[in-house]
Amino acid sequence: MASATLSVDLKALAANWQDLNTMADGKAAAVVKADAYGLGVAPVAKALAWAGARDFFVAVAEEGAILRKTLGKGPRINVFSGHMEGDTKLIRDAKLTPMLNSVDQMLRHVEALPGHPFGIQLDTGMNRLGMEDVEWSALRDLALAQKPTLIMSHLACADDPDHEMNAQQRQVFQEMTQGVTTPLSLAATGGTLLGSDYHFDMVRPGIGLYGGLPFIDARPVVSVDIPVIQIRDVAVGETVGYGNSWTARSPSRIATISAGYADGIIRAMGPQAHFYAQSSAVPVVGRISMDLIGVDVTGLAEEPTHLELIGSHQSVDTVAGFADTIGYEILTSLGARYTRVYN
Amino acid sequence: MASATLSVDLKALAANWQDLNTMADGKAAAVVKADAYGLGVAPVAKALAWAGARDFFVAVAEEGAILRKTLGKGPRINVFSGHMEGDTKLIRDAKLTPMLNSVDQMLRHVEALPGHPFGIQLDTGMNRLGMEDVEWSALRDLALAQKPTLIMSHLACADDPDHEMNAQQRQVFQEMTQGVTTPLSLAATGGTLLGSDYHFDMVRPGIGLYGGLPFIDARPVVSVDIPVIQIRDVAVGETVGYGNSWTARSPSRIATISAGYADGIIRAMGPQAHFYAQSSAVPVVGRISMDLIGVDVTGLAEEPTHLELIGSHQSVDTVAGFADTIGYEILTSLGARYTRVYN
Repeated sequence: MASATLSVDLKALAANWQDLNTMADGKAAAVVKADAYGLGVAPVAKALAWAGARDFFVAVAEEGAILRKTLGKGPRINVFSGHMEGDTKLIRDAKLTPMLNSVDQMLRHVEALPGHPFGIQLDTGMNRLGMEDVEWSALRDLALAQKPTLIMSHLACADDPDHEMNAQQRQVFQEMTQGVTTPLSLAATGGTLLGSDYHFDMVRPGIGLYGGLPFIDARPVVSVDIPVIQIRDVAVGETVGYGNSWTARSPSRIATISAGYADGIIRAMGPQAHFYAQSSAVPVVGRISMDLIGVDVTGLAEEPTHLELIGSHQSVDTVAGFADTIGYEILTSLGARYTRVYN
Repeated sequence: MASATLSVDLKALAANWQDLNTMADGKAAAVVKADAYGLGVAPVAKALAWAGARDFFVAVAEEGAILRKTLGKGPRINVFSGHMEGDTKLIRDAKLTPMLNSVDQMLRHVEALPGHPFGIQLDTGMNRLGMEDVEWSALRDLALAQKPTLIMSHLACADDPDHEMNAQQRQVFQEMTQGVTTPLSLAATGGTLLGSDYHFDMVRPGIGLYGGLPFIDARPVVSVDIPVIQIRDVAVGETVGYGNSWTARSPSRIATISAGYADGIIRAMGPQAHFYAQSSAVPVVGRISMDLIGVDVTGLAEEPTHLELIGSHQSVDTVAGFADTIGYEILTSLGARYTRVYN
């Protein structure tokens, strides 16, 4: 078996959700967009529902329709992109709750699906999704009369607790929702960690469930192990991989492992990346290619059959650092070729 | 519909294969590993088989088993990672032809599946996959007696036609296969373009089929169009996206589009990336997030409903340049969330 293994610890996932839910006084939803951050939405969402999550968030209606098949009738499935042109049938049939972003979406929704549940997204300064103050002022009475399920916004800088933007967005959110009795939501994982001032009626953790920063106390959820295809001796002066970018300076043992950038091991990681053989760090040599990577295993006491990319020796966030990116991107890039194992 | 659309022009794909096949005097196989470079192996492989391809290559046996279901009995499916521990059942049941990389693999194969077809990979200097000269010398007579289907190697620097490594690897390959009557193969797309000296009995194009460099005459195969969710005015001094990394210096119109790094729009592209609205280039503003990107559409005559990432205005390789990577990585990173359309 040359395909690499991606193991997902569903107990750790459920425990992370429960911790964040406790932290937020029982108000936690679960964000499972992008195929549950690349981990597989069906088993992940089932585990979260089992742990007690009743509100789920996805990015687009198509994801919501898939999730509904997994979750069955009960849980609420909320869609961040709202009600787009062409979404009506999916929203109706899969009983999705679009988080409407604009006057256009509001009109589309109430016209196409009168009486169908919806939420509202407000922009409090991130300028990404949601109604601006002026739009909201014009629409507010009409919208509230339709009894939205939720009014939400999103923080731009919650990963940095000291950023002044956090309090500023909270204040704008409070001003925009003054006197409203609809349930309110502002925080994702970072916002949940900012404290109860940011929790309102619902928090929406994503990355924290999957074991990533900024939830520093998260249990690790993901491990990735990659089979070694072969190991060879490389003499001084010999090169390894595309473009001859690495040359042996001393006699070396080089393992070729069966994964590459098609498996989310970002090409830009190059020689910054290393893997683990038991507790020994072993560095990448040469360019990361689509399906194969060369790793210097010189001096290991035993020839490894597998190398660890993510696991007990290095976290998703450590791996992200190899490519100067964030753990979120590592998770969503892992791709379809892994043998996925759920424990 | 907020999911982005990935369109694959199967006629252009087939024509690219035919051009490379003609260039190589009818000796072209087709490389469809990594889900046909992210484009979807079932429709891609069917189109290539229809165009005339009879030999296919995948990275791992699991991919081969999926491909066999698509292609049916006729075509040969070759596996670059060879015969790994645990592969025997897949290789036998799906009638795969492993490209054996080492003495270990050779012993495993002839012991587990005596008489089952196999090929041999030789290392000619890339030090990635394949038997070293000394291994091959020891094994050669035994291996040839088993009538391998193919003896192959792989070029490390074929994208650079002037690299001395090309001729050097060719010479080593010729020396290692002197007097052998088994069909031989050395070239992928780059090697095919190096000329008939590199073609031997089979060439194995991959990236060229999918419209990428180094096949400069390739027809474009892929286009990616992303829906706009909403467009807003942003005043001077306002910020857009995570971390407030972009600030408006003049009154701006910002579109939020429905795709992000979970869709292979690599986060590191950041502000180097741009999209197209008709024939106008429009730049990314702020950080690329998982499912959403801000784009400056100020001054467009019409409000766009979609923006083009890849298509008639910019190629896969142009997009790769935004992240200082290669077209191959863009293709294999596109991910599962696109609505795939095959024309």
